Amino acid sequence: MPTSIWTRHHVLSLADFTSAEYNTVLQTAASFREVLSRRTKKVPTLQGQVVANLFFEPSTRTRSSFELAAKRLSADTLNFAAATSSLTKGETILDTAKTYLAMGTDMMVIRHREAGVPQAIAAEMDRLGVRVGVLNAGDGQHEHPSQALLDLFTICTILDPDQPRLELLQGKKIAIVGDILHSRVARSNIWSLTASGAEVHLAAPPTLLPQLFAEFVSDDGRAGGAGEKPQIQNRKLFVHWTVEPALQDADFVMTLRLQKERMTQHLLPSLREYHHRFGITRDRLKLCQPNVKVLHPGPVNRGVEISSELMDNPQFSLISEQVTSGVAVRMALLYLMGSSKV
Amino acid sequence: MPTSIWTRHHVLSLADFTSAEYNTVLQTAASFREVLSRRTKKVPTLQGQVVANLFFEPSTRTRSSFELAAKRLSADTLNFAAATSSLTKGETILDTAKTYLAMGTDMMVIRHREAGVPQAIAAEMDRLGVRVGVLNAGDGQHEHPSQALLDLFTICTILDPDQPRLELLQGKKIAIVGDILHSRVARSNIWSLTASGAEVHLAAPPTLLPQLFAEFVSDDGRAGGAGEKPQIQNRKLFVHWTVEPALQDADFVMTLRLQKERMTQHLLPSLREYHHRFGITRDRLKLCQPNVKVLHPGPVNRGVEISSELMDNPQFSLISEQVTSGVAVRMALLYLMGSSKV
Amino acid sequence: MPTSIWTRHHVLSLADFTSAEYNTVLQTAASFREVLSRRTKKVPTLQGQVVANLFFEPSTRTRSSFELAAKRLSADTLNFAAATSSLTKGETILDTAKTYLAMGTDMMVIRHREAGVPQAIAAEMDRLGVRVGVLNAGDGQHEHPSQALLDLFTICTILDPDQPRLELLQGKKIAIVGDILHSRVARSNIWSLTASGAEVHLAAPPTLLPQLFAEFVSDDGRAGGAGEKPQIQNRKLFVHWTVEPALQDADFVMTLRLQKERMTQHLLPSLREYHHRFGITRDRLKLCQPNVKVLHPGPVNRGVEISSELMDNPQFSLISEQVTSGVAVRMALLYLMGSSKV
Repeated sequence: MPTSIWTRHHVLSLADFTSAEYNTVLQTAASFREVLSRRTKKVPTLQGQVVANLFFEPSTRTRSSFELAAKRLSADTLNFAAATSSLTKGETILDTAKTYLAMGTDMMVIRHREAGVPQAIAAEMDRLGVRVGVLNAGDGQHEHPSQALLDLFTICTILDPDQPRLELLQGKKIAIVGDILHSRVARSNIWSLTASGAEVHLAAPPTLLPQLFAEFVSDDGRAGGAGEKPQIQNRKLFVHWTVEPALQDADFVMTLRLQKERMTQHLLPSLREYHHRFGITRDRLKLCQPNVKVLHPGPVNRGVEISSELMDNPQFSLISEQVTSGVAVRMALLYLMGSSKV
Repeated sequence: MPTSIWTRHHVLSLADFTSAEYNTVLQTAASFREVLSRRTKKVPTLQGQVVANLFFEPSTRTRSSFELAAKRLSADTLNFAAATSSLTKGETILDTAKTYLAMGTDMMVIRHREAGVPQAIAAEMDRLGVRVGVLNAGDGQHEHPSQALLDLFTICTILDPDQPRLELLQGKKIAIVGDILHSRVARSNIWSLTASGAEVHLAAPPTLLPQLFAEFVSDDGRAGGAGEKPQIQNRKLFVHWTVEPALQDADFVMTLRLQKERMTQHLLPSLREYHHRFGITRDRLKLCQPNVKVLHPGPVNRGVEISSELMDNPQFSLISEQVTSGVAVRMALLYLMGSSKV
Repeated sequence: MPTSIWTRHHVLSLADFTSAEYNTVLQTAASFREVLSRRTKKVPTLQGQVVANLFFEPSTRTRSSFELAAKRLSADTLNFAAATSSLTKGETILDTAKTYLAMGTDMMVIRHREAGVPQAIAAEMDRLGVRVGVLNAGDGQHEHPSQALLDLFTICTILDPDQPRLELLQGKKIAIVGDILHSRVARSNIWSLTASGAEVHLAAPPTLLPQLFAEFVSDDGRAGGAGEKPQIQNRKLFVHWTVEPALQDADFVMTLRLQKERMTQHLLPSLREYHHRFGITRDRLKLCQPNVKVLHPGPVNRGVEISSELMDNPQFSLISEQVTSGVAVRMALLYLMGSSKV
């Protein structure tokens, strides 16, 4: 596998990922996807190494995906669950990480509800001079790079199953619809998709858009027009307050999970109103390209972000493919991080 | 092992199990019990395969038994615990199962407090055309087939350690005592034991018997007489409102766990009263065959369903043997389900 | 490895450990520490065997250390967490242990908030005539032998990295500072350190010292003088109500975790006051030998038992080494207990 150019111990953010790095992940994940299609789905790559899943914020789904990726590389896994941990006993998060380091952990997969925690742990590992890799599995509303990479892999695999690569997205239009403001998935996806040369169109109610993006909304923003100042450092990013201009001729539609607490925070009138204005349905997809595909990072609120019928329709929905890709992409990341140590 | 006749991907209920299927499970479990007596208790049968334990209702004991069975077949295991899951985030149970399917799970072991959930998941797997096996590890008050199969294996092994088989139960009398109404264990046991040709005698207070069985109680039911209309489709099933006629000359006595909440539901006056009327004691066993053996699915309320002294008496109690048999029987089921895929 | 003299199935307390046993543990742990420095950190020693971690009192840190030790010996592990267990269903602790025995567990690692539980389980295993090893991973305020053994290993390794052995501590002075009253770690350490011939000096506020030790405090105890009746069965144990005489010329300082609930129990005025009087700081260490080292079993309340700066100072702090030693020492214990079975 093409690891020669890979020099990252940590995968924390996609903000500074290069095209070569994206392509290395895509190509390595493609090799592992092939492994997963065999009857015996294991390789001895990380035998004797320890991957610790430190999930300060619980997530069975993502933790299972990482655990399975590690096991299929023959690593041993340790699971840390915040609920029963010594955090309740007053230990700091860095101390917890250093405890797992001292036990002999080779890689740490970290989720925390505050932005910056995986970065802080990675910085501490570097300061200590140890070659332990840290992977950000979601930090607050900041980033969730492995999710964005599996989304990228899923999309590229649709475009060329044999050779998924970044360049395939050049000139494609991708809509990201939903609660952009609170979504670390959206933030990571914006980095990877704009890096590919795709046109990225965000659509959300104004209350669920970061202030940062306000200036990108065109004067007819309230009416849903496309932004007039789309270029950020040559990246093609557009912002809309209605869903239709984002969907128009889109090749891929990424829907985001809507946390139900947004309503008690008065950011949304009702789930029904949200679905009425931003929910992705068969009908709305008629605005898109005929071969349009829909993604969702899961778990889905059926009938809110996406209609139940559409979610289960294999012609349009890539949701299962995303989960399958997730294991291959996470195997690739652990493999690459591990090989950068030698 | 005799897998040629095995065609089930799923083990959901014993209602339609054939004699050949029972005997295949018994024979396969006997082979695995032999493996478990070796120093190295592992076989490579399911290497590279993934068994997901989806326990929507928590149960450390049953989950550990399945986890150990899977590990001894060299499978990788994933544990899903409802408490920390995305179910609290609004995902449906079918979506959770499909997520584990998409990750690459080969077999799912499912427990849920509502009847029918494993069946619904199995139906969805079949609808999707995937060959993933689903095993019902307890659904509501409906069935718990692996528990009944381990009970059957335990009993048959007493009767012939070398060749446990269904026919050994022909003409034996088996009493099932306790909260029949709420017991999925009882339901599954009634299927397997009556299928064997044994005489099955249920004994419970009227409040803890299913309405369905009311007609089977004889006119002197309140006085504890044996039912007069015992035959259901040639199965020898008798129902009693007192324990003595069920114990009379019994070869095996299966006691059932009594949930303490039955009292707050006013189905029982007190645990003490229950023990006085239905508790199994050394004294009551004098009604049975001299070699009578007692079973309990665990966990036991000592001094309620069974006297503490009797529970610890290896001359009568098969409770430990049941737990040991559990691992062998679950290895057999996972093995058979896995081999039916080829 | 030098297992010939090892005859313990269980490791429950250090009260009756012999010098030969301490040295066997130290020597075996040194061999495993060497294994842990290799790239592939696994040995096949316990392949096919099952280690059950029965943590009736939750502890992610200690459980992870044992789990990793077991996995690096190639054992399969089962984790029992009290929260989701059938204990809430009324099963006794002995019944839980017997259930794991019947499943085929070879070794049990047990933590419980009441003193004596691991001993009771070990006694039951012996009564049943099974050769299952029980390891006390902390019982109430009684003992925590594996922690004391890893502390011993950490200290001896500082004194002679190649041949850690008990005799190295002869004539050394070791201070144990903090909540002695509630500390099982202190109790186990007192056994091992005094057995080595070291001088052990306890320092704590009178409210956090066991009554048992009151008589050992000298008449000037309140002023912090050294005890005048230090000898207990030839063991050199001294007790102080202030920290300074314990630190004077000490070679090692062991700090203990302070539970915050001690304040609501009115045993302490405030954490700040405690730190002011007993907290270990760079300044206080000037009383000690120049090469003094500081230990803490973790998790640490930074700025309470020990200053934050000192905790992170590798010149003085052995806290990380303790965690690393923990895995090697626990591998040694599981290995020795396992080999005593043959």
